[in-house]
Amino acid sequence: MEEKFAKESLTIMNELVLPNDTNTFGNLMGGRLLYWMDICSAMAAQKHSNSTVVTVSVDSVSFKRPITLGEVVTIEAQVTRVFQTSLEVHMEIFAQNLPKGTKEKSNDAYYTFVAVDKEMNRKLIPQLVPETEKEIRLYNEAMQRRELRLILAGKLNPKSATELKSLVKIFQNIEK
Amino acid sequence: MEEKFAKESLTIMNELVLPNDTNTFGNLMGGRLLYWMDICSAMAAQKHSNSTVVTVSVDSVSFKRPITLGEVVTIEAQVTRVFQTSLEVHMEIFAQNLPKGTKEKSNDAYYTFVAVDKEMNRKLIPQLVPETEKEIRLYNEAMQRRELRLILAGKLNPKSATELKSLVKIFQNIEK
Amino acid sequence: MEEKFAKESLTIMNELVLPNDTNTFGNLMGGRLLYWMDICSAMAAQKHSNSTVVTVSVDSVSFKRPITLGEVVTIEAQVTRVFQTSLEVHMEIFAQNLPKGTKEKSNDAYYTFVAVDKEMNRKLIPQLVPETEKEIRLYNEAMQRRELRLILAGKLNPKSATELKSLVKIFQNIEK
Amino acid sequence: MEEKFAKESLTIMNELVLPNDTNTFGNLMGGRLLYWMDICSAMAAQKHSNSTVVTVSVDSVSFKRPITLGEVVTIEAQVTRVFQTSLEVHMEIFAQNLPKGTKEKSNDAYYTFVAVDKEMNRKLIPQLVPETEKEIRLYNEAMQRRELRLILAGKLNPKSATELKSLVKIFQNIEK
Amino acid sequence: MEEKFAKESLTIMNELVLPNDTNTFGNLMGGRLLYWMDICSAMAAQKHSNSTVVTVSVDSVSFKRPITLGEVVTIEAQVTRVFQTSLEVHMEIFAQNLPKGTKEKSNDAYYTFVAVDKEMNRKLIPQLVPETEKEIRLYNEAMQRRELRLILAGKLNPKSATELKSLVKIFQNIEK
Amino acid sequence: MEEKFAKESLTIMNELVLPNDTNTFGNLMGGRLLYWMDICSAMAAQKHSNSTVVTVSVDSVSFKRPITLGEVVTIEAQVTRVFQTSLEVHMEIFAQNLPKGTKEKSNDAYYTFVAVDKEMNRKLIPQLVPETEKEIRLYNEAMQRRELRLILAGKLNPKSATELKSLVKIFQNIEK
Repeated sequence: MEEKFAKESLTIMNELVLPNDTNTFGNLMGGRLLYWMDICSAMAAQKHSNSTVVTVSVDSVSFKRPITLGEVVTIEAQVTRVFQTSLEVHMEIFAQNLPKGTKEKSNDAYYTFVAVDKEMNRKLIPQLVPETEKEIRLYNEAMQRRELRLILAGKLNPKSATELKSLVKIFQNIEK
Repeated sequence: MEEKFAKESLTIMNELVLPNDTNTFGNLMGGRLLYWMDICSAMAAQKHSNSTVVTVSVDSVSFKRPITLGEVVTIEAQVTRVFQTSLEVHMEIFAQNLPKGTKEKSNDAYYTFVAVDKEMNRKLIPQLVPETEKEIRLYNEAMQRRELRLILAGKLNPKSATELKSLVKIFQNIEK
Repeated sequence: MEEKFAKESLTIMNELVLPNDTNTFGNLMGGRLLYWMDICSAMAAQKHSNSTVVTVSVDSVSFKRPITLGEVVTIEAQVTRVFQTSLEVHMEIFAQNLPKGTKEKSNDAYYTFVAVDKEMNRKLIPQLVPETEKEIRLYNEAMQRRELRLILAGKLNPKSATELKSLVKIFQNIEK
Repeated sequence: MEEKFAKESLTIMNELVLPNDTNTFGNLMGGRLLYWMDICSAMAAQKHSNSTVVTVSVDSVSFKRPITLGEVVTIEAQVTRVFQTSLEVHMEIFAQNLPKGTKEKSNDAYYTFVAVDKEMNRKLIPQLVPETEKEIRLYNEAMQRRELRLILAGKLNPKSATELKSLVKIFQNIEK
Repeated sequence: MEEKFAKESLTIMNELVLPNDTNTFGNLMGGRLLYWMDICSAMAAQKHSNSTVVTVSVDSVSFKRPITLGEVVTIEAQVTRVFQTSLEVHMEIFAQNLPKGTKEKSNDAYYTFVAVDKEMNRKLIPQLVPETEKEIRLYNEAMQRRELRLILAGKLNPKSATELKSLVKIFQNIEK
Repeated sequence: MEEKFAKESLTIMNELVLPNDTNTFGNLMGGRLLYWMDICSAMAAQKHSNSTVVTVSVDSVSFKRPITLGEVVTIEAQVTRVFQTSLEVHMEIFAQNLPKGTKEKSNDAYYTFVAVDKEMNRKLIPQLVPETEKEIRLYNEAMQRRELRLILAGKLNPKSATELKSLVKIFQNIEK
């Protein structure tokens, strides 16, 4: 089966924060950002899989700084790894104040998608080839995130989560 | 400081899935649901805290069934526990097909908020009193979720996560 | 034919007032509220009829207090009575200022719907069983509202409006 | 105080029915039409009063024909009469299928507004001078509609509703 | 083939400038106005052609004055001339401040459309008959605008642009 | 005064075509694309000028291919040249069908902006340094487009349009 480079899926989205995107402080509502992140990561997922995709999960997201009315939200999404019929997309979110010329990282996020055909049946996705150091790290860690995700969704017995062993070792130290 | 019952924060939101909320399959986009969940849980958080609130994090969410155009999304949100200036809201999401008379659970979710005053300074939140068995369970588990959240956000050293010890014990069994 | 209790149709909708919902005073525009009321009452109508529905009329609505940006509009809708292929929904609308902890009634409203099948033909609706004192009162008065509605829409000759006789008696006193 | 002709307030609004305005049949939702009618009549009210205005009531509206996706809704609004600090706007709503070249009347409606200054205090509105036969008829009937509106809103004792006497005479005949 | 008068296509659109239509100065964004102009001119084009239409080009538009939150944008669109399967629509855009009673012209614009059948094939459009002096002038100048449009789109060799000769004569004077 | 490279202003926007963006054929409406282009080019203009900006004009745009529901519109915007207090942004618009893996150029466009301070007074913009062959060509041609723009807006006498002389020479050949 075909293979594609990680960077081929890179998708950049820039959105201007408009009044209806904000709360009473004039700050971007978290839910609006989660909505844009879904659109942007779905585009990256489609680009890699050449398929329509359906969102299956969102990993924990924490919002670190307020983004204000008139600022620009920049989302950079790229596929990290493929799991047969699903794939994981990593995003970095930035808040830009263009008049001030500032660009600050707001947060990271991971969304997972499955590829489906016209009858909504899952279909195989081309393998992903990571190239840069960062892409390789994200690729390797993806298996751990996947196991944590499946455990949290109740779909995996922790005992079968072999990739989380290293995480476990850290936790074991708590005991001592 | 004042105390309030968990049930006082119950907030129910019903949203009709309209064309612009759907993907090319006519199914609700995950991002739109995350947006509604943010609005609904923020209302529950405001109701309990009597304060404006800001979203600080979203826990892992997995979407289990497609919700289709014309169906109704029902979100039931209630505060589970208060942590000084922050609180956690639990949501159950249902998809209702009203003509067919069906109501199926779609997923659970946890959003976390901080209460802020007019200068965006964090402020204390009244304690929450859980009453029912379910409220007490959600209250007790909230501390574990909080530690996992802080670890995932890089704000807590796993060694300090005392509440996750029981989870660790499960993981330790993997080793044996 | 099947019968259903009035309370089974209860539908609660909570909407946050966002900037685009407001006029230049930062108050909710009446038209936006009428739109939300239509969605909410249609959900109640679908819940009772297990059918798709079409709005046929809106009774007089008067707006008694301004609702402001950042407040929450709570709409509680419930079916009052069925007329073969149509039904009436009663709504109570509240404005909540969650940070202040206030909840004030804004207004009442009645929307009427017909139930239709896939070819848009009218279909029979299950009868409604009122239980509480309030439900019984709304059920009884529904016939008067229906006659007034039909007269105002030019579909009923006032001479045939038997239910309005009591109203007429009040008017007769004007003459004396 | 200044007087203005009825026709000076004429405001025409044409809106294309887009996907998000429609229900699952592809027909315009009643609530969306009520929203557009509020915007259009508010513009007519502002044009006459040279003031910001606030919607105070909507008279009974009945929807007589479905309006479909891609059709154009034409709303023609004009002030009918002024009551010191409030005024009534009459609207005729048409559905146009431009490719087919058809234009059908959908319904009539009456919205009422008060004029307010920057502190939201009510202010006097210039008197309206009706000219055409239709304008004069709408002007004369406006007093009856106003009394019915006040009675329905619980703001007027039916015994004081002198303008409704003719309506009462019709009702009296029911008795005989 | 059928002929129709220019005035039969007149379409008036009034849009209230809401918060989400504005930039951080509270002024209408140019892009929102271009969007409304597209909807309005498409309605005029459909009205004349009795056909669905597709936008093919927008002529240069310059924005001369800011339009502010709460003002009303009035667009008056009318077909100027038909070119077999395409037609040109002229628009005048006004900004009205209704409380102040002012109405100022903002700008002019020309949009071009083709008429298409259900398979998206181009179809013939009825000829247009200009009547007033202004309609005749717009009709005559339409050919020059069309040639400039085709040259700018790279679809016409300037040597074939016979209608632009008069414009050329002006330019020739630059040389002398 | 500070100088900046052309490429520093590059802004990429990816937008998914949703139901409400489409006409009855399921194709993107031209007006929606013009709206997105305004947002995207304004971001590029702000990035270069480090200032808030106001749209002053849009050059002729022709739409060459339909873009359909579910496709992705990619807009790449970059400043071409600065004229004291105004600047021109060039955009290339692409339609991507991600499941099919196609990316086709839809059209080019030029929007012009002025930089303004908080009192809406025009302010000087840093000069732009073009580097690549393409950037240099766009920089050189910008003066011609500016003159044509000013002539079309009635702000420049054709006799003063020295940059258009080469264009005139082409037109002169028509005469011979």
